[in-house]
Amino acid sequence: MASPHPFDQALALRHSDLASGHFIGSTHPAYWNMVGPFGGMTAALALQAVLRHPELLGEPVALTVNFAAAVTEGEFEIVAQPARTNRSTQHWTMEIRQRDAEGRMQVNTTATAVTAVRRQTWGENDCPMPEVPAPQAVERFSIGPKGVAWLEQYEMRPVSGAVPRVWDGSGHHSETRIWVRDAVPRTLDFASLAAMSDVFYPRVWLRRATVVPAGTVSITTYFHATGAQLEQVGTGHLLGRATGQQFANGYFDQSAQLWSEDGTLLATSNQIVYYKE
Amino acid sequence: MASPHPFDQALALRHSDLASGHFIGSTHPAYWNMVGPFGGMTAALALQAVLRHPELLGEPVALTVNFAAAVTEGEFEIVAQPARTNRSTQHWTMEIRQRDAEGRMQVNTTATAVTAVRRQTWGENDCPMPEVPAPQAVERFSIGPKGVAWLEQYEMRPVSGAVPRVWDGSGHHSETRIWVRDAVPRTLDFASLAAMSDVFYPRVWLRRATVVPAGTVSITTYFHATGAQLEQVGTGHLLGRATGQQFANGYFDQSAQLWSEDGTLLATSNQIVYYKE
Repeated sequence: MASPHPFDQALALRHSDLASGHFIGSTHPAYWNMVGPFGGMTAALALQAVLRHPELLGEPVALTVNFAAAVTEGEFEIVAQPARTNRSTQHWTMEIRQRDAEGRMQVNTTATAVTAVRRQTWGENDCPMPEVPAPQAVERFSIGPKGVAWLEQYEMRPVSGAVPRVWDGSGHHSETRIWVRDAVPRTLDFASLAAMSDVFYPRVWLRRATVVPAGTVSITTYFHATGAQLEQVGTGHLLGRATGQQFANGYFDQSAQLWSEDGTLLATSNQIVYYKE
Repeated sequence: MASPHPFDQALALRHSDLASGHFIGSTHPAYWNMVGPFGGMTAALALQAVLRHPELLGEPVALTVNFAAAVTEGEFEIVAQPARTNRSTQHWTMEIRQRDAEGRMQVNTTATAVTAVRRQTWGENDCPMPEVPAPQAVERFSIGPKGVAWLEQYEMRPVSGAVPRVWDGSGHHSETRIWVRDAVPRTLDFASLAAMSDVFYPRVWLRRATVVPAGTVSITTYFHATGAQLEQVGTGHLLGRATGQQFANGYFDQSAQLWSEDGTLLATSNQIVYYKE
């Protein structure tokens, strides 16, 4: 039997016997970043605990994940709790915890989510997909440094705003447009869409054409599609667009959109990122 | 002695003796919306509990507030807890609770915040303020329905995208540009900036030129200025810009920016809003 997709391996959670919504997981080497797991994977795991919860109502509408401290290699626990359940919406709080060197359980991630039973309504896309060449016409090219495991898990085809090849301080904008999908084909779902909302490299690198230490502090993703729509996107490419709005006093924000190849805006995502200089 | 500013009255919290970070407050009629308090006031209160916490480190960088259930008139409690304190950043979780008709304490709001000690760094605004007429050249005009108390607390001067005067389904965009400040002059601070991030009326009303029930489910605001910078803005106008990106299956998002009159981008804010039809 074939082994599960790397993303599903990394997403695997065991429901503990301690309490409803208490899960045990483990960091996966395939989604390792430079000094911890890929933040998108951590976001996907926080959401997965909600999706696996026996009391789940509806599908994800909003997800906020705060990266409070480094996640270290090995086992972690996630607790997902429904804070409020209404007729068609449900509000969740989540925490990821690990034991520190002294064996004390410490919170390294806090998160909230909103799930909802969605109904068909009038709809409109007020943020059309930029006109870009088809994925097949764009060269495959990793947007990050070599030797970073999680980057290998994605097929990335940057249309514009690829990671600078020359770090000479010549940057003059912060927008990246990129085709992206799982390198090993996998049908899109909420967890993978949450992860892909965080595939963009730090905007400050592009803006300045300078490498400085940077790390996401908080990410919020809104889901604009149903699970059935994501399944229809299947293993197709998504067009991702990300841009910074403000860089000031050690933090910049990133505004991002992810469209399916047919131009449906599947998710909008924002994050605030620490940078040092 | 003059009575405090209405915003400060609404923001008043009493620290309870039960636990550090446990506050008692009460809804204020001046910031009442149609069926509950103005969401921006609720967001400001969640932040205020952090700002008043004796263990606070630094200043607000990010705030996410989830409107889980209606806040009813009267007393509420807010609990703010530092989930993780690092060297220069601090991660917070907050909850607002009220007793239901049966006297049971119920969560109606969940929230998270990040505070940080900020240091001067290189900075850049990649989202310049649109060119608009000066506030003095724009007519003062409320953007919402008459008889809604909180709207009276703001001086609003819509440059474009004012609330439709005719509801004939003729809408074709979802962008509002508006000068805004407290109607009774008050020096800008993080709490009032958090509140002003939510002054825009529902984008779906503008997009469709049709009134439908709508309510914010979750709002995330990033602060790009220091407290000292906000104090310098003083009682000046802010230019707010808000636009929808996607309207689908009962939820739309709103992307917003708030600039000071000199063009400094003070805050970027996103929200996801329920709408019915």
